[in-house]
Amino acid sequence: MSICGKNLVAGEWSGTTTGGFTAFHAINNEPMNIEFADATEQEVETAILQAAQAFESYSQLPTQERATFLRAIGDEILALGDELVEMACAETGLPAARIQGERGRTVGQLAMFANMIEAGEYQAIIEHAQPNREPLPKPDTRLGYLPLGVVGVFAASNFPLAFSTAGGDTASALAAGCPVVMKAHSAHPATAELVALAISRAITKCQLHPGVFSLLQGKNYGIASQIVKHPKVKAVGFTGSERVGMILQRQIHERAEPIPFYGELGSVNPQFIMANKLAQDTQNIAQELVNSLLMGQGQFCTSPGIWVYPDDGHAAMFEQAAADAIAATEAGVMLTPEIATTYKNCVQQWQEIAGVRLLAQGKQGAEHFCTAALFATDFATFKANAMLSEEVFGSSALLVRVGNTEEMLELVDMLKGNLTASIHALDSDLSDCQRLAIPLAHKVGRLIYNQMPTGVEVCASMNHGGPFPASTDIRATSVGGEAIKRFQRPICYQNMPIELLPDLLKD
Amino acid sequence: MSICGKNLVAGEWSGTTTGGFTAFHAINNEPMNIEFADATEQEVETAILQAAQAFESYSQLPTQERATFLRAIGDEILALGDELVEMACAETGLPAARIQGERGRTVGQLAMFANMIEAGEYQAIIEHAQPNREPLPKPDTRLGYLPLGVVGVFAASNFPLAFSTAGGDTASALAAGCPVVMKAHSAHPATAELVALAISRAITKCQLHPGVFSLLQGKNYGIASQIVKHPKVKAVGFTGSERVGMILQRQIHERAEPIPFYGELGSVNPQFIMANKLAQDTQNIAQELVNSLLMGQGQFCTSPGIWVYPDDGHAAMFEQAAADAIAATEAGVMLTPEIATTYKNCVQQWQEIAGVRLLAQGKQGAEHFCTAALFATDFATFKANAMLSEEVFGSSALLVRVGNTEEMLELVDMLKGNLTASIHALDSDLSDCQRLAIPLAHKVGRLIYNQMPTGVEVCASMNHGGPFPASTDIRATSVGGEAIKRFQRPICYQNMPIELLPDLLKD
Repeated sequence: MSICGKNLVAGEWSGTTTGGFTAFHAINNEPMNIEFADATEQEVETAILQAAQAFESYSQLPTQERATFLRAIGDEILALGDELVEMACAETGLPAARIQGERGRTVGQLAMFANMIEAGEYQAIIEHAQPNREPLPKPDTRLGYLPLGVVGVFAASNFPLAFSTAGGDTASALAAGCPVVMKAHSAHPATAELVALAISRAITKCQLHPGVFSLLQGKNYGIASQIVKHPKVKAVGFTGSERVGMILQRQIHERAEPIPFYGELGSVNPQFIMANKLAQDTQNIAQELVNSLLMGQGQFCTSPGIWVYPDDGHAAMFEQAAADAIAATEAGVMLTPEIATTYKNCVQQWQEIAGVRLLAQGKQGAEHFCTAALFATDFATFKANAMLSEEVFGSSALLVRVGNTEEMLELVDMLKGNLTASIHALDSDLSDCQRLAIPLAHKVGRLIYNQMPTGVEVCASMNHGGPFPASTDIRATSVGGEAIKRFQRPICYQNMPIELLPDLLKD
Repeated sequence: MSICGKNLVAGEWSGTTTGGFTAFHAINNEPMNIEFADATEQEVETAILQAAQAFESYSQLPTQERATFLRAIGDEILALGDELVEMACAETGLPAARIQGERGRTVGQLAMFANMIEAGEYQAIIEHAQPNREPLPKPDTRLGYLPLGVVGVFAASNFPLAFSTAGGDTASALAAGCPVVMKAHSAHPATAELVALAISRAITKCQLHPGVFSLLQGKNYGIASQIVKHPKVKAVGFTGSERVGMILQRQIHERAEPIPFYGELGSVNPQFIMANKLAQDTQNIAQELVNSLLMGQGQFCTSPGIWVYPDDGHAAMFEQAAADAIAATEAGVMLTPEIATTYKNCVQQWQEIAGVRLLAQGKQGAEHFCTAALFATDFATFKANAMLSEEVFGSSALLVRVGNTEEMLELVDMLKGNLTASIHALDSDLSDCQRLAIPLAHKVGRLIYNQMPTGVEVCASMNHGGPFPASTDIRATSVGGEAIKRFQRPICYQNMPIELLPDLLKD
């Protein structure tokens, strides 16, 4: 299948690749021979207006048909076969097994949302009239939910399938009844085109309005501004850096009409190892944390970036075990050369902070590879350097020794919001865990016990979000069944005749 | 009981009334002999820090005890007796029967939230581990909700009880587990003090941390800024004008950490009278709309401000009936002299718009009274003047004749967001209603059939919110059971031992 490099604008492949940009082969560290168009202002406008047009019919589509559409997207993604896997591997440098797993997760996520809306799109509340109530009669009132309208979605660099073109934001918006205008990530435009092709085939198969989904390519920041500022866009989903996310947030703040912005921006995912656990499982816990850190070269939003443990007789052994594991690590390719450069600069900067010690580094590799790094420090240094609480995107972690549980709690208090935190403990650590768990819960979207933060289960009870900067909207999750609700809003129907009620609100 | 005029700062009555402001007697149109303190920067800071302190214990309080506290507030409000009613009447000019009804609603609302959290604070989702699942085991994951933290609440002028000190925002935040820092409305500071006294008595009775509730008095805008910008404030509730609401919204946008802002800002609550209904119930529907418009001198957020109907043989008779009803109306006192002046200016401005006809006015009254007004126009004029879609706070409505259902739909398309809209129709109007109901639903938070918009039922299926500017957060309601969820956020607990789980998430 040949990649055309164009934008998918409401069913039409549109644009000229001249003057656009080139796909990049992450492993070979060189441009691929595929040119891509930068979406023009007119194309962005058309995509949004067509999406608004499509909303009229798509928002009224019976949930059964919406579910069929979601499953059709999954089928078409699978039908792309090995080409999709090969292209995603080439563009991101991630191994085939990981991409295959991510494809399974993406298709599974579409199916989960399909199952959910089929089982009942939302939980209606129906309260019948009480005409004889004193002092006033009670009217018939029924609470339902409406889709918000056109949703703008921005793809993430680190999950070319699960958080990109047909990823969680797209799948949940479509499940909610909202058309999607997608901005592809410029680090994997060909992968995005293939998935968009799958979605457009599903649209055709299900005979939907082609405005239900558009894919816009480009490296031009103006495309993003145009999407988030457009009056017909009623919600935005974004996964990426705090820097870019906050640029979008500020632009959204300038709108006349406020809209929800669901940005997932970053997280250090602190790991707390309690005293008895540290003593008993010294080697194991070090090895497991290193394994978690190395997944996808640390380019997971749930990568364990800060490890906290008591400064006791086992601390040195724990650090040595972690250092040994890191030292044996091969370097690996990063998602883009820019990400590799930023990572290297961060590692360099940290080495220059007084009181921070480079504990170990992995093996060196090519210029665009990530060399894993472990830093160690004490609590006083951590307290004095706000920078040490910031995310480093890549396989680097900071190990912090604390004097006692009070210092551990003080560290928790200093943390910004996170997607996750883990407590590693034995039964005998319970009383310390009880002190830690409550304040730590208020800093995270997911609190984990004796498991690693990487690997987000896609299920109804998942929460992938958290206090800022983990999320710009603390009340929202981008993974799990509740993700659909981000793109719907309540409406009360009062005294409505049956003919004017949505099906779910009929008796 | 004498009014002290001070701020309630975490259980202490604090401040000096010298240099502050004076309560105002709405009916007599003159200052009352009660001085009030403007809260100082230090008092605001203390109230917020004490609230943050109180959050530690209050957020952990068993829901049964939280429910007991809410009911105790209701009991203490009732125990204030006639003094509360008299004071609220004096400060707002609203009649005693209305204030008594509002007190009942306020106490009932506290009881409703108490019942709801007792029945189960939220719906937990528990998904057990599947250790043998392929290709990867599924961890135990449980979705629960945490209160957000300190909530800043701003009282409304037009509901001195139900949307003020112990109103919906306060009650739902307290129900959610969040301490409240309340900015009283300067139009009814003595009423606010009495209700704050009731809350502080309930705090003492229930032996809670006094930081759970503070009341700040003042006319100084700096108080509001300080509250909404404070890092320890994690959500804000506001009911008031679009102008003031958007000032707060912009200040909230400048925060480093984004927080939810639940502003309810204004609504014209359009009324659509279909052809057969207009023909059959000409007089009745006119009278009922006038009655709804006149409630509380039109100072209801759900007041019917725009009436739309076909330009057919019954239109003139309908207008005449409405004009006659209005002409017979006595003038009435408004909430404040400033509101009366703004209302008069709006009515004056409208009279100067070409194509807008003053259909009728109610009787004249004192300077600070509201004289009801009906304006009539055609669709072309309505389309050409964006100002005609804006809310006039007071008993003024605009009657718009439309040529046909297409024009009615075009008018719907032009509307900004509204709290409510009503469709008035007969069975024989059904096909037109079906065309109207879907686009109209997307413009409102509550869609009503053959009933008036005034009178918001307090029940689990109510939605009081809507697209902007009805609400700054389209996904939130300020009335009804779902209001609690505004002040909570999801958290997933993964693989947690039973001892570290909140009660609701235990098996």
